[in-house]
Amino acid sequence: MKIICTRDNLKKGLFIVSRIVGVGNPLQVLNNILLKTDQGRIKLSSTNLEIGVNTWVGGKIEQEGALTVPAKLINEYINNLPSDKVTLASKDNTTLSIESENYHTSIKGLSYEDFPLIPQVTDETFVKVDSAEFRNALAETIWASAANETQPEISGIFMAFEDDKVRIAATDRYRLAERTVQAMEAARGVKEVIIPSRTVTELYKILTIGKGEVEIYFSESQVLFKFDETELISRLIDGQYPDYRQIIPKGFKTTVDVDKNELVHALKAAALFAPDSNNVTVEVKPNDGITVAASSMAAGENMAKIKAKVTGDENAAVFNFRYLLDCLNNLPETTVELKMINDASPAAITPKGRDNYIYIVMPIKL
Amino acid sequence: MKIICTRDNLKKGLFIVSRIVGVGNPLQVLNNILLKTDQGRIKLSSTNLEIGVNTWVGGKIEQEGALTVPAKLINEYINNLPSDKVTLASKDNTTLSIESENYHTSIKGLSYEDFPLIPQVTDETFVKVDSAEFRNALAETIWASAANETQPEISGIFMAFEDDKVRIAATDRYRLAERTVQAMEAARGVKEVIIPSRTVTELYKILTIGKGEVEIYFSESQVLFKFDETELISRLIDGQYPDYRQIIPKGFKTTVDVDKNELVHALKAAALFAPDSNNVTVEVKPNDGITVAASSMAAGENMAKIKAKVTGDENAAVFNFRYLLDCLNNLPETTVELKMINDASPAAITPKGRDNYIYIVMPIKL
Repeated sequence: MKIICTRDNLKKGLFIVSRIVGVGNPLQVLNNILLKTDQGRIKLSSTNLEIGVNTWVGGKIEQEGALTVPAKLINEYINNLPSDKVTLASKDNTTLSIESENYHTSIKGLSYEDFPLIPQVTDETFVKVDSAEFRNALAETIWASAANETQPEISGIFMAFEDDKVRIAATDRYRLAERTVQAMEAARGVKEVIIPSRTVTELYKILTIGKGEVEIYFSESQVLFKFDETELISRLIDGQYPDYRQIIPKGFKTTVDVDKNELVHALKAAALFAPDSNNVTVEVKPNDGITVAASSMAAGENMAKIKAKVTGDENAAVFNFRYLLDCLNNLPETTVELKMINDASPAAITPKGRDNYIYIVMPIKL
Repeated sequence: MKIICTRDNLKKGLFIVSRIVGVGNPLQVLNNILLKTDQGRIKLSSTNLEIGVNTWVGGKIEQEGALTVPAKLINEYINNLPSDKVTLASKDNTTLSIESENYHTSIKGLSYEDFPLIPQVTDETFVKVDSAEFRNALAETIWASAANETQPEISGIFMAFEDDKVRIAATDRYRLAERTVQAMEAARGVKEVIIPSRTVTELYKILTIGKGEVEIYFSESQVLFKFDETELISRLIDGQYPDYRQIIPKGFKTTVDVDKNELVHALKAAALFAPDSNNVTVEVKPNDGITVAASSMAAGENMAKIKAKVTGDENAAVFNFRYLLDCLNNLPETTVELKMINDASPAAITPKGRDNYIYIVMPIKL
């Protein structure tokens, strides 16, 4: 293998593939990335056996070949390199030489034959979505999934495809985020899948790099996202996603229009006085606005009042402040609507003037 | 106690005193700061029993008094507060109420009587130095002290005062940094002290806040730095600082003028190939410049060449790359001089065109 390319192209490619690679994996090849000449370009690949990433970098191929090298080492080396032109060559089956002006390096690697096969998804494009729109939708949902993998279905992110709509949902049974995305054209069928959180987090990071369309492909147990010069392949989570739509209330007793940042400040102040319980009380009164309060034996107590437009009944409930902040911190709008029924029924947060997103949160019963 | 002040003044004061306070100290009062009315201002104090910090904040005193409250809690609360006017009042001997527009809070504290006494240093000013000059000098030295407190003398920072010069030194016996500072006037005597590293690090942080003069006071076993509205009091380390000046070579065989950033890049590249040993080889040849190289069985090998003006003999030695980077990363100059004798004698780094600083580093004998 012999390739000439720019440091900056290589750097961008390494950034994309390095993220999912470990450093201390006892199976050494899993700490490595695969470099391979591929139809006039350089293909970089990585995998953690659940997710695979391929990205292509432009360059001049002088000799075909392939090799794996430690991801962290080559990434840090290229990031630190002062000059822009880089020549990569395999010295033997397991050593990569990197030559650039004044810098001469050999990195010990492993044969490409040791690298795990990343599955191919050969089916036609299932649906296309705009990358910026899709990325915003992920930002508003993915943190709501269950951290605990003892419930594998809800540890993942749910996606339902039908006509030209993609519905993305995440829940941990105490809260739920749902966002609908307009696809660029109708999907090739109706489909519901559960995708591992880690995969969706990686996808989100990859989508920060540019703009364009994301093509989504499926095989029976795999999903492939194609964006720009990058492919992200992941297994799907097997199982039945809970029928979450039944818990979304049909109507509310109280609706509050409130400045998001004022609510965030009040919740953060209250949070300091709920160090163990996370419990804050949210009280809503027409003509009076919102009161956010918390207290604990050890810390003391706090109460903050926020002006807000309250429509409907007086209302109060206790919430985990983290659940409210998770949502508020991820919405771009400056005004949100808080909707309540009573102290035991699900409440909702929606961005003011946008109807493709809803966040449901259960109050805490004391 | 009842005080009215601005959030921003209080925030600045809390920032200064909070840094040395712990959070999980079983002696609860050591997690707290002391608020006290003091001659028309608010005095904030903290201590970790080795270091004490006092700072004064302007405000309107409506009622005299004192109280202690958890540092972390009040600091985070005030930082998050949206409005600027704050009223602090003791509700009883152990509870602080903080009132501001729309925000009403009570913080549980402890009586001021439980707070440890911070020693007073009542002697006259020993010497005055310019804060920016002093801070720069600390930046170039304090990281060179021994991390290990089994050698208490060299775990601290040495300061020698004589006439209008302050000599600051730090060493861990493998490397040494020495910087001389011009005082604003002659010191009131000759004095050599060892100051705990933590104290000097705190002083450095406090000096980032403003500009002006630093007054230094001594009692038998304490030092006091006074800057702006802040006092930092610390014990001194008892003991004899090693006579480090004898290890500074009188002359060198080789002097190299080199671009600091190029040398840093070359060292960082080599560092990747010295993951366990930290050993990099620095080779210097007239008409050829510097070569920095490293290799390891596991990672591979690297060699980088840097153009440099070499005066004197050809030379080579092995160094711990961290020791070289520590110095280079803390010098503001873009050109440095590297001076060598042979592979077993101390080498030196000095900033080009400045003679108040020297860094000595021992080569590694293989």
